[in-house]
Amino acid sequence: MSATRYTYLGPEGTFTEAALRTLPEAATRELVPMVSVPAALDAVRNGDAAAALVPIENSVEGGVTATLDELAAGEPLMIYREVLLPIAFALLVRPGTELSSIKTVTGHPVAQPQVRNWLRTHLPDALWESAASNADGARLVQEGKYDAAFAGEFAAATYGLEPLVTEIHDAKNAETRFVLVGRPARPAAPTGADKTSVVIWLGGDDRPGALLELLQEFAVRGVNLMLIQSRPTGAGIGNYCFAVDAEGHISERRVAEALMGLKRICPQVRFLGSYPRAGVSPEEVEPPRLGTSDEEFTAASDWLVRSMDGRA
Amino acid sequence: MSATRYTYLGPEGTFTEAALRTLPEAATRELVPMVSVPAALDAVRNGDAAAALVPIENSVEGGVTATLDELAAGEPLMIYREVLLPIAFALLVRPGTELSSIKTVTGHPVAQPQVRNWLRTHLPDALWESAASNADGARLVQEGKYDAAFAGEFAAATYGLEPLVTEIHDAKNAETRFVLVGRPARPAAPTGADKTSVVIWLGGDDRPGALLELLQEFAVRGVNLMLIQSRPTGAGIGNYCFAVDAEGHISERRVAEALMGLKRICPQVRFLGSYPRAGVSPEEVEPPRLGTSDEEFTAASDWLVRSMDGRA
Amino acid sequence: MSATRYTYLGPEGTFTEAALRTLPEAATRELVPMVSVPAALDAVRNGDAAAALVPIENSVEGGVTATLDELAAGEPLMIYREVLLPIAFALLVRPGTELSSIKTVTGHPVAQPQVRNWLRTHLPDALWESAASNADGARLVQEGKYDAAFAGEFAAATYGLEPLVTEIHDAKNAETRFVLVGRPARPAAPTGADKTSVVIWLGGDDRPGALLELLQEFAVRGVNLMLIQSRPTGAGIGNYCFAVDAEGHISERRVAEALMGLKRICPQVRFLGSYPRAGVSPEEVEPPRLGTSDEEFTAASDWLVRSMDGRA
Amino acid sequence: MSATRYTYLGPEGTFTEAALRTLPEAATRELVPMVSVPAALDAVRNGDAAAALVPIENSVEGGVTATLDELAAGEPLMIYREVLLPIAFALLVRPGTELSSIKTVTGHPVAQPQVRNWLRTHLPDALWESAASNADGARLVQEGKYDAAFAGEFAAATYGLEPLVTEIHDAKNAETRFVLVGRPARPAAPTGADKTSVVIWLGGDDRPGALLELLQEFAVRGVNLMLIQSRPTGAGIGNYCFAVDAEGHISERRVAEALMGLKRICPQVRFLGSYPRAGVSPEEVEPPRLGTSDEEFTAASDWLVRSMDGRA
Repeated sequence: MSATRYTYLGPEGTFTEAALRTLPEAATRELVPMVSVPAALDAVRNGDAAAALVPIENSVEGGVTATLDELAAGEPLMIYREVLLPIAFALLVRPGTELSSIKTVTGHPVAQPQVRNWLRTHLPDALWESAASNADGARLVQEGKYDAAFAGEFAAATYGLEPLVTEIHDAKNAETRFVLVGRPARPAAPTGADKTSVVIWLGGDDRPGALLELLQEFAVRGVNLMLIQSRPTGAGIGNYCFAVDAEGHISERRVAEALMGLKRICPQVRFLGSYPRAGVSPEEVEPPRLGTSDEEFTAASDWLVRSMDGRA
Repeated sequence: MSATRYTYLGPEGTFTEAALRTLPEAATRELVPMVSVPAALDAVRNGDAAAALVPIENSVEGGVTATLDELAAGEPLMIYREVLLPIAFALLVRPGTELSSIKTVTGHPVAQPQVRNWLRTHLPDALWESAASNADGARLVQEGKYDAAFAGEFAAATYGLEPLVTEIHDAKNAETRFVLVGRPARPAAPTGADKTSVVIWLGGDDRPGALLELLQEFAVRGVNLMLIQSRPTGAGIGNYCFAVDAEGHISERRVAEALMGLKRICPQVRFLGSYPRAGVSPEEVEPPRLGTSDEEFTAASDWLVRSMDGRA
Repeated sequence: MSATRYTYLGPEGTFTEAALRTLPEAATRELVPMVSVPAALDAVRNGDAAAALVPIENSVEGGVTATLDELAAGEPLMIYREVLLPIAFALLVRPGTELSSIKTVTGHPVAQPQVRNWLRTHLPDALWESAASNADGARLVQEGKYDAAFAGEFAAATYGLEPLVTEIHDAKNAETRFVLVGRPARPAAPTGADKTSVVIWLGGDDRPGALLELLQEFAVRGVNLMLIQSRPTGAGIGNYCFAVDAEGHISERRVAEALMGLKRICPQVRFLGSYPRAGVSPEEVEPPRLGTSDEEFTAASDWLVRSMDGRA
Repeated sequence: MSATRYTYLGPEGTFTEAALRTLPEAATRELVPMVSVPAALDAVRNGDAAAALVPIENSVEGGVTATLDELAAGEPLMIYREVLLPIAFALLVRPGTELSSIKTVTGHPVAQPQVRNWLRTHLPDALWESAASNADGARLVQEGKYDAAFAGEFAAATYGLEPLVTEIHDAKNAETRFVLVGRPARPAAPTGADKTSVVIWLGGDDRPGALLELLQEFAVRGVNLMLIQSRPTGAGIGNYCFAVDAEGHISERRVAEALMGLKRICPQVRFLGSYPRAGVSPEEVEPPRLGTSDEEFTAASDWLVRSMDGRA
């Protein structure tokens, strides 16, 4: 029954599954791994799943283009939650394997640049070959094809392996952001620490000026941006749309006015949702810039009405 | 009875009276000259007059500071009409006087720089002395104190003089803008060629940046400005407020949103009225910039509501 | 001999003379009062005087338009110094006059709005009549035409009067700014607390956008503005140039680059001088914004040269 | 000998090799395919090759992140040429194969989304499996592992295959941009149709405002942008640098001043080269915006020097 089914970018044992399991409701859902981001999202579009968890931003590789492009095109979807997961790899081996005996290592191609320096230092002579996923790499170690695999430590048990080294990552603070995506509906109520995602197309030929105008629609209403990522529109070299994450919730006046401003000057704007920010409490959020709180918007509306009545 | 009384910057026979008489309703009003702009406006504030006509902008001298300062301070007033009057002087003399016999000329001090070049060419040896107004200068010629006065040609008859030379003005296209001011009430309905006047105070110490922000509140909504005039606030050197005339009517969405934006970020905004532009028909007005018409504002509001319902 | 002659806006005994006497070199110059700002400046243009001191900005009345317009037009002049003078009036009377016996008061028309509240409180029944200057008002009291005159306390001795009340001013911190103007030459060396004055004409029909661009030429180089004053160009209602005072000295790179930027996009820019700020020491001046010091300009130039050589 | 050796992203028979062969000098160079973009560029850094041709922007997939990240980090390199190549696939089969008999197809993973719609229409039941490269897919067809491969038509001969269908691409006008990269040296002379590439890091926490400032450094000097692509800096989620392509050549004053402006306000700017635009002749390039030509820069410099001498 789809209402209780969540899909995710599989296979089992990857960081995406680990991210999904941090959500309380995951305990009561059927969690179904899918072979690709499009497959995970199509299951939601088809009604086969209530929601899908997919990676959207990676502190090493940047925006996950498959996810951004899927959300920007096709039947609309909406983001309801985000999950931030620190990324650190474990070197998984068959029980008893020692570091000095490792000749071959595997893992997802995306993992390789994240552990390159570690490999150069600790296993300078080991041969790297890519696997279809980190979990698949672990399976191939289990089957004896490679001596070791980089994967999440949580994947060890599934494949009868043990973590020889943990917390491996060339970059400090590496993390990946995942989003829980469902069919469009009313956004969750604002929490005081929210984020709004949109995809914005620029029109005309003067794209640089148009990007400046786009940023000014946010700036003039005091809405801070947290991410701006260009993506090709498919209409040829140099044609881009922009995936933007802004602070605040669509139900806040400054955010709503900025979105309407974009809607008016851009040929297309797709609202991807307003949802709670992961890892940030309302107390940690800076208050709106002077003149941009809901109270100030309301006071200005009242003043305008009085002015139009000659009572200001 | 005040409802039928209009005051104006006197005395009789000045350009202000000429401007007032271009208004159709002037024919059915009691027209009362006042000694100063504050006096003319105080009569409106006190209820002694329904409206006052005063000069506000002069193509030679710039903003009329007495009027700007009176509108910016004290009990609020509103502008309901504007009148543009071409300014050209006549040289008024007692009947029979010839140009070659003129030794002394008079007129309002403001008139002097507007006819300086003409005087240098045609009456290089004549002595100038200032009068309290152009009309008062004419009276002094009538009394024989001076040989000639610069004034509006229409003032000749009142003082038994004749215009020896007409259409005198050093600058081409010299004109003065007058406004009809009343107590605050609902502005006139939009005509398609309207103007909105406000006075805006900037806060804080970063005044240059604040002026940039002020202009951006208009620019981001596509509202063109026609006049921006700084005036001291009285709080010391370097403290200014700005009198601004913008294209459009407060009932238009782009103008209303810009005004509310100013109201939110500035410590004080005073709405001075939305009224028909003199000398411009709706056909001559450029259409709103892409994305700033009322229809586009409404469409964007509708889109926002649908987005908040998950139906965009 | 003109090299030792300074003109000023007269007559003797006015605030302008008091301002001029604060300059050390005034003690060794012949100080010549002139009847008007144009007359004072024409003496400099003609070579009859080395310099002229004239008022340029008043905390109550705003920019002194006669001075601004004279500097913007005609043969170029340059500002070399500024003087800030606190403005407070004394009520000058003939010896023995008591406050209760004052029936008539006089003074320059500009003085009247600055003492209006004081008059309402302390001499509600006294009749005001304007004089040609504050000093002239004092003379008329000496001659017995009026009972009291508002003027600078320093004028009392000249006219055999005594100051009955001093430090009269409706506004706190009222002051007037004067400038010492000479023929164009090399500006004074920078002191670390300098100011640069220019007059800028905007081109084309899109004046509001042009003003925004003008401000951005300064903003992008981190140059703060201290004054922006619109003045009509004489080309008809709505045509303005802008008198601008910016922080810094033309020999500083950020100021020079901003001025060249203006020169390139505006039909006309007139440099009016770089000179020490009155009343501000270099220690009180905020350091240039990050990225706008001369050192940073030089470092960026060096980097560019290296980049063009393939050595960056 | 390295001076005559060019590396490229291999293997042989890919679009990169086809792009490289459009360069006249390719005929006299040793062309060496490399297994990855980093490998191709490291050969240049090591002195093993004079230059490398690598893809940098794809009209379907966007910026080629491996190339952008390699150019942004490590020992500096510079771009000297760009090549635009229309991308269309041929369906390569063993001689005699008919469309109706194709059960399995292969190709590079990047090719798959570019032919998805074509496959759905013409081969709805064929099974797709990815190959390491388009050329490798062709080899696998030669070996009989798959029935057909998507690759460039030029790859057919190499593998003894024939193009069954040509000009296959879901998107019209699909093309890829390649760059020829060498060690830093003096850029090529300007041609009148040039492009300048830089990577810019933003500092501080206020990243959205910083991006606006970055764009304004270009806008205020009238420099149009052709590409702006965000890339993670590796310092955690939300930390980005920007790869920017701007119109014009570093030897043009408006470009040089914008680059120096960026250098001053940003913690790091890496100049990646000024080089001729592919597919655009100087006649097709719009002239610089009013006030931004080299002549206007020179005139403004002259004016500044005269102003500092009192001769403006």
